[in-house]
Amino acid sequence: MSEIKVVTNILKANDELTAENRKKLDEKAVYVINLMSSPGSGKTSILEKILAKLKSDMKIAVIEGDLYTTMDAQRIEAKGVPVVQINTGGACHLDAYMIKDALNNLSLDELDLLIVENVGNLVCPAEFEIGEDIKITVLSTTEGNDKPLKYPLAFEKSGVVILNKIDLIPYTDFDKQKFYDDVRSINDQAIFFETSCKNDWGLDELCAWIESKVKTLS
Amino acid sequence: MSEIKVVTNILKANDELTAENRKKLDEKAVYVINLMSSPGSGKTSILEKILAKLKSDMKIAVIEGDLYTTMDAQRIEAKGVPVVQINTGGACHLDAYMIKDALNNLSLDELDLLIVENVGNLVCPAEFEIGEDIKITVLSTTEGNDKPLKYPLAFEKSGVVILNKIDLIPYTDFDKQKFYDDVRSINDQAIFFETSCKNDWGLDELCAWIESKVKTLS
Repeated sequence: MSEIKVVTNILKANDELTAENRKKLDEKAVYVINLMSSPGSGKTSILEKILAKLKSDMKIAVIEGDLYTTMDAQRIEAKGVPVVQINTGGACHLDAYMIKDALNNLSLDELDLLIVENVGNLVCPAEFEIGEDIKITVLSTTEGNDKPLKYPLAFEKSGVVILNKIDLIPYTDFDKQKFYDDVRSINDQAIFFETSCKNDWGLDELCAWIESKVKTLS
Repeated sequence: MSEIKVVTNILKANDELTAENRKKLDEKAVYVINLMSSPGSGKTSILEKILAKLKSDMKIAVIEGDLYTTMDAQRIEAKGVPVVQINTGGACHLDAYMIKDALNNLSLDELDLLIVENVGNLVCPAEFEIGEDIKITVLSTTEGNDKPLKYPLAFEKSGVVILNKIDLIPYTDFDKQKFYDDVRSINDQAIFFETSCKNDWGLDELCAWIESKVKTLS
């Protein structure tokens, strides 16, 4: 039983740190997005597009979660946006403690929007709150429409679900209606966007939505 | 520090159960594949193809790891092969204890090949031995060629690496040379296969290789 006890303690400690992070971020009126998905669904590409479209309108920073490398952080830095790298050293998700530490390396006073790119993993990140205002889950069409039922927690907890790589749908057997029905069956509040980073589809709509959320805080 | 202690204990317990599983499977001369990947890379589709091609030549069974559903197990059962479902109840990987339990539900005496389809997760499953002869990691071209360096453990520990959805490569910016170089930099022994379940590419070669391994045990 010792594992279960420790897991409870970890989640309790995480809840306390989440509340602390949230208070700090609320005081500074920073809107925080926790971006989650499997490896390779296109989180970083979407993030690059968001930064390019929104960085002239607001102050944005990024926290990059990765196991070992700074490969994604380098891509973000190239967009001219402050980025803090968290290397989890093999751990499969970000938690509130890691975020608390990363926040100390950002100038929150000047910030409007903070996007946290979680570790590529459709299972574990959804279990850990980090102080975010919203979770956004990305699924790419090439992953298959069966994923919401197989990995329900991420879809259940997300305020926004992005269906990415929509340009590749003609080459797959992805059933869009089934996908939407399945997400709706576990989350009747989620807002949907369809995007293609290759063809720049749906990204203006996504960015307009993010901008509207940031404006409610300022 | 309590978490670290417990994690050590879990891994130690897992090692002991792994040895137990391996002994049992070795005695019965069953070749065991631990099939790993991100969600949506095509593990189940590859498995369906392997079963269709090999089930008349040898006795095969499957253990299906999934968080909550039996969706994949139903697909395997339709191929006329014995399948045991492990629902992890949200846990992000299979471990040796779950496999030990599943083995009690299989007729090992009659078996040549056991394929374990792990939970769709490119991070955690690679940390847990289950008594397998070989780990096989699948990556699909649509996930991007940067994944071996970002998620090295699965690639490091795998005897075979399958690059799947090779038919979709013209629609991506996947750099095959970089992919192979990166895998080689962390694993100079891995055997590679390129497959497309849509066009049936590379599956005969993969099945011939599996058959050769099974024959060394019989």
